[in-house]
Amino acid sequence: MKKQILYILKNGYPRAISGESICKALGVSRTSIWKHIQALRKDGYEIVAQPNVGYRLVTVPDFLYPEEVTYNLTTEFLGRTVYYYKEVNSTNQIAKDLALQGAADGSLVVAETQSAGRGRLSRGWFSPYGKGLWCSVILYPKINPVEVPPITMLASVAIAQAIREVVGIKAGIKWPNDICLKGKKVCGILTEMGAEMERVRYLVLGIGLNVNIEAEDLPSPLKEVATSLKIESGQPVNRLHLLQVTLKELEKLYFVWLEEGFAPILIQWKKLCVHLPGLVRLSNLKESWEGWTEDIDLSGALLLRLSTGEIRRFITGEISLTTGYGQAGCLPYGPVPREVT
Amino acid sequence: MKKQILYILKNGYPRAISGESICKALGVSRTSIWKHIQALRKDGYEIVAQPNVGYRLVTVPDFLYPEEVTYNLTTEFLGRTVYYYKEVNSTNQIAKDLALQGAADGSLVVAETQSAGRGRLSRGWFSPYGKGLWCSVILYPKINPVEVPPITMLASVAIAQAIREVVGIKAGIKWPNDICLKGKKVCGILTEMGAEMERVRYLVLGIGLNVNIEAEDLPSPLKEVATSLKIESGQPVNRLHLLQVTLKELEKLYFVWLEEGFAPILIQWKKLCVHLPGLVRLSNLKESWEGWTEDIDLSGALLLRLSTGEIRRFITGEISLTTGYGQAGCLPYGPVPREVT
Repeated sequence: MKKQILYILKNGYPRAISGESICKALGVSRTSIWKHIQALRKDGYEIVAQPNVGYRLVTVPDFLYPEEVTYNLTTEFLGRTVYYYKEVNSTNQIAKDLALQGAADGSLVVAETQSAGRGRLSRGWFSPYGKGLWCSVILYPKINPVEVPPITMLASVAIAQAIREVVGIKAGIKWPNDICLKGKKVCGILTEMGAEMERVRYLVLGIGLNVNIEAEDLPSPLKEVATSLKIESGQPVNRLHLLQVTLKELEKLYFVWLEEGFAPILIQWKKLCVHLPGLVRLSNLKESWEGWTEDIDLSGALLLRLSTGEIRRFITGEISLTTGYGQAGCLPYGPVPREVT
Repeated sequence: MKKQILYILKNGYPRAISGESICKALGVSRTSIWKHIQALRKDGYEIVAQPNVGYRLVTVPDFLYPEEVTYNLTTEFLGRTVYYYKEVNSTNQIAKDLALQGAADGSLVVAETQSAGRGRLSRGWFSPYGKGLWCSVILYPKINPVEVPPITMLASVAIAQAIREVVGIKAGIKWPNDICLKGKKVCGILTEMGAEMERVRYLVLGIGLNVNIEAEDLPSPLKEVATSLKIESGQPVNRLHLLQVTLKELEKLYFVWLEEGFAPILIQWKKLCVHLPGLVRLSNLKESWEGWTEDIDLSGALLLRLSTGEIRRFITGEISLTTGYGQAGCLPYGPVPREVT
């Protein structure tokens, strides 16, 4: 009922809607309408009541309420079911639990803050209240676990494009799926899955996108490597709009991938990549290599040309861009990296 | 205490041990010993009490009790922690829950029967009470999800070798990890994992091994494709011994794999494979192919030579051996398959 009243007020915006017509449309009493209006105000909606005219919606709160996310959402399935929380430990954790309970394909879990937000490899993820998109999407693709890396790369393309569209700044991608602005990370994706050998049972794409974080919000070690859309664009960004566009882009690419495979996505990914070609340092838990990024193959693996000339294929690892020509007097073995834009 | 008394009786077997010496060794009263002996009898242990002589263990029940599994177990970590159940829905389900709660590496979940035993692709798994090894092993290998197939193939080698060692019959392997006797399935492995992109969080190897199932136990559609060790060997098999040898073989190969990688395991796997070379039909959920099995690569993928001459790489699928020369008048394109032994 609350949702329906909100829908009527939104459709009327910026006009006022008479209490009588709301009563008629929904078949309830004036008192009932009044109670729901009060509840909406409590949720943060600014609604003025003008005597003899009606109710007028003035502002919508900056919360990612399900009724806001799904209002005018143009996707077919992604984000049509929304699980909203003010605070969670981690949206990925909630999403995994929901996936095991059979939540709808494309369900979105979104929170204003995460008390134990997680990044890759058990690192934390700084998720201040109301200042980012801290969310997870549940998918049930009929694929083998080895085919998952392309989907997570696909997600990075969708987010980078949504940032370009909504904020107008050139977000780039660092392999495999970090999204960067001027060399600093603005968004991370943590993909988790439950799987058998032959098939993925569920996939959870966790997105941590720094939207309206201020420079002074960032704790000191993060300052050097992380940024936000607001810091880089100089303006606050409408999180809701950004989320909707991200969902739309994500679904569009997901459909392309289902129908045509990873090849067309990879072309877009490469265009957005900030180090192809480029000199990078790749580290995993045990070792690190420095080399020239030759290419990304159709399974999403990075082909790195080492200084020995050998081309090595990496399916995992973390890369950092080396702006110089390597350490310890290594000679450059490729053109200088292009500007990170 | 019960476990300690059992241990003393077992070490004394087949001699009787005086109640007094048990009292001394454990520092408890005769009455207490008596109570525990009664409890052991209730568990199915046959223990005779001879006046003026002591207690003598006569027989051990045919249950996979933790104290039986771990008694004289020669592994370093595998199966040292045992979760035993008379009945569960599925040992894999229990094992996954335990893994999320941080159960020890190498923990074993074992049950006498499964009410909802699962095979690959959501099929059921027939698990009659006390007649098989229905168990799951929890592992935490530090690997990427794409590196999992070799571990599940490794498990099939361990089980096939344990069967050969304990039962003395030549079990073979059908790609990727079914264990067969005379063309019928005697054991299936259902591997499940929880993972991020970069790393597996837990791996559960579910083993369903038909040990003492009688031919008449098998429901009609299963009869055509499944068998048991007892049916094929004509003799009942000691499940406990088989489980211990399986754990030992599994751990041995796991250590080889950790130190030397998949190559030495693959050599053994190939020796046990019943269709290399061979003419097979490979099916997945959408399509099916017929071809000649050329090889298995180091990632565990099957290389199939199709009748067009093209060699195609499969990471998943189910194969059936085709004894003839293909359908629809296809000409043979390789030597006839060797006898399935």
